[in-house]
Amino acid sequence: MKVISDAQVRAALRPGAAVRVCRDALVQAHRGTLKAPPRTGIDVGSTELVFTAGGTEAGTVGFGCYGLWPGPEHADQLVAVWGPDGKVRGVVVGHALGALRTGAIGGASVDALARPDASVCAVIGSGTQSWAQLWAASAVRGFTEVRVSSPTPANRTRFAARAREVLGLNAVAMADSVEAVRGADVVLVATKSTRPVLPATAFSPGCHVNTIGPKLRGASELPAELASVSAIVCSDSPAQAAAYGNPFFTGRRLSHLGGIIAGDLPGRISEGQTTLFCSTGLAGTDVLLADLLFTDPEVAAA
Amino acid sequence: MKVISDAQVRAALRPGAAVRVCRDALVQAHRGTLKAPPRTGIDVGSTELVFTAGGTEAGTVGFGCYGLWPGPEHADQLVAVWGPDGKVRGVVVGHALGALRTGAIGGASVDALARPDASVCAVIGSGTQSWAQLWAASAVRGFTEVRVSSPTPANRTRFAARAREVLGLNAVAMADSVEAVRGADVVLVATKSTRPVLPATAFSPGCHVNTIGPKLRGASELPAELASVSAIVCSDSPAQAAAYGNPFFTGRRLSHLGGIIAGDLPGRISEGQTTLFCSTGLAGTDVLLADLLFTDPEVAAA
Repeated sequence: MKVISDAQVRAALRPGAAVRVCRDALVQAHRGTLKAPPRTGIDVGSTELVFTAGGTEAGTVGFGCYGLWPGPEHADQLVAVWGPDGKVRGVVVGHALGALRTGAIGGASVDALARPDASVCAVIGSGTQSWAQLWAASAVRGFTEVRVSSPTPANRTRFAARAREVLGLNAVAMADSVEAVRGADVVLVATKSTRPVLPATAFSPGCHVNTIGPKLRGASELPAELASVSAIVCSDSPAQAAAYGNPFFTGRRLSHLGGIIAGDLPGRISEGQTTLFCSTGLAGTDVLLADLLFTDPEVAAA
Repeated sequence: MKVISDAQVRAALRPGAAVRVCRDALVQAHRGTLKAPPRTGIDVGSTELVFTAGGTEAGTVGFGCYGLWPGPEHADQLVAVWGPDGKVRGVVVGHALGALRTGAIGGASVDALARPDASVCAVIGSGTQSWAQLWAASAVRGFTEVRVSSPTPANRTRFAARAREVLGLNAVAMADSVEAVRGADVVLVATKSTRPVLPATAFSPGCHVNTIGPKLRGASELPAELASVSAIVCSDSPAQAAAYGNPFFTGRRLSHLGGIIAGDLPGRISEGQTTLFCSTGLAGTDVLLADLLFTDPEVAAA
C-alpha cells in the first residue's frame, strides 16, 4: 500500500497527464461508466466530514474526504483507492491533490472549449486554486502572455514570478482586473468573492472562462450577464451542481462538459462564441488522479 | 502520519485496553458527547462503500470505510483519524481492526452484564468474529472453562487449540451446541445463520448472551423466545439498530448499553436474570481504537 504526501504529489503529478485523466473521467461520467454520485456529508460534532466517492467500470473505486473545520484552511484531505480485488492501493494525504485536480478539470474545459490558437490568458485571483488552474491550462494551450490580477500587490507579484519560474510563462501582474481580461482568450477566475469581480462587458467575445469560486445565484464571483451572452455554459457535473440546493448564478441549464468532449453535445463552433465553464469538482476525479500516482510507472519515476 | 497494518494491529492492540476504549465510547454515545451517526453507503458501481464516522467532544474525528464486494471476504477496510488541528494522525488498513473492535464492544457488554463470577463461557461459531468476542470477553471475566461449538470439526478444534495457546484458556471443542451452552454463564454467538442455531431452552437462567450474527426478525441466529425471557435486551447503538430498516428479532425496545454502563439505565440486579446484547457495531469505536494505536505510547511500544 502506498502513502503519498503533498511533496510527492507536487513532484510527481504532471499537468498534461492530470488533464488527460480528468478528460477521460468527464467522458466516462457523461456515459455513466464512471459512478460519481453527489457528495455526502456526515456530522461528527466538531466538524463535518465530506465524502466524494467514485468508481470506474473496471472496478477501481475510492473516495476523497475533507473536513469542514472552521479554522484550518490547510487541513489534511485524504484520498483512498481500492482495486477490483478489494485491496487498498494507497492513500494520498494532504491538500495538494484537491486543488490540482480542480485545476486539471479546468484544464480539460480549456482544452475542449478555448479557441485552439488561444494565446493570452488572464488569471483573476492569486491563491492555490488560481495556481492550479494556470498549471493545467498552460499544458493545453500555448500562452504567449499571462496576466495576473488580484487585490493585494504582493500576492499577484509573487504569483506572476512563480508562473515565470515554475511554468516558464511570460507572466505579468496587473492591478486592474478589467485591463487584465481585455482581449484575453482564456480567463481563469478563482476568487472567494460572492459579488461579481468583473462586469460582463470586460470579457472579449470569443473568450473561454472558467469560474472556480462562488457561483450561486446572488452570491457569485461572475455576473449573470456573462452567462447570458455565452454560447455554451457547462459544468463538470450538472448533477452535483443541482445537489447544491441553491441554483447557480447562470440561470440556465448547464450542459455536461463530458458530453461536449465526447462530441455528443455542441461545443464551440465559431471564433466569436464566448464559452463559460462552472467548476463543481466532479467526484471520482481525485480517486483517478491518486490511482495515476499509485500505478503509472512514469509518474512513479518522476 | 502513521500507517498501521493488520500485523501491527494484532501485535499492539490489547483486549483490556480495547474494551476500556469501547466502554468509554459507549458512555459518551449515550451522553451524546460521541457523535456516531448511523452508517452511510455510497454506490460506486462495482461495490458500495460504507462509511461509519464518529467524533469526540475533544475534536478527534474520523471514519471507518469498508466495501460490499460480492467476492472477497478479506477486502481491506480503512480507518482514518484526524486530530482537532485538522491533521491526519494516521490510517489503519486491513481487516483485523474491524473484528477486534466488534469483539471489544462485546467485551464491554460482558463486563457490564455478565455475573461477576462468570466462569464458563460458550462460543458458538469458530470464525473471525467468534475469536474477537472471546479475545475481549476473556479480558473481563476469569473463565475456567471455554467450550467452542461449530458445525465443522476441524474449525472448532483449531479454534479451541488457538484459545489454549494464544489466550491461555482451558478450551475444548464440542460437537453439540446445546451441550456447550448448558450451564454456561456467558454465551458468545457469532454465526452467519439466519435461522436460530439454538432453542431458547438451551440457555441457563442467569447467563449473558452476545449475538453478533444475523438479528433481523425472521432472519436471526437466535430465537425471539430468548429475548422474551431476558430481563435486559440491549444494544451498543439502538439508533443504528433502528436504521437497519427491518426490525430486530427481539421484538422489543433495545436499551442502550452505554446507559447501563453509565448507571442511567437498569443493569443486572439478580443472579437469575438472563441478559442479551445485540451487537450493531457502534460507529466511532473503530476511530477511537485506531487513535489508541496512534497515540498511546504503551500500545506503540507493544
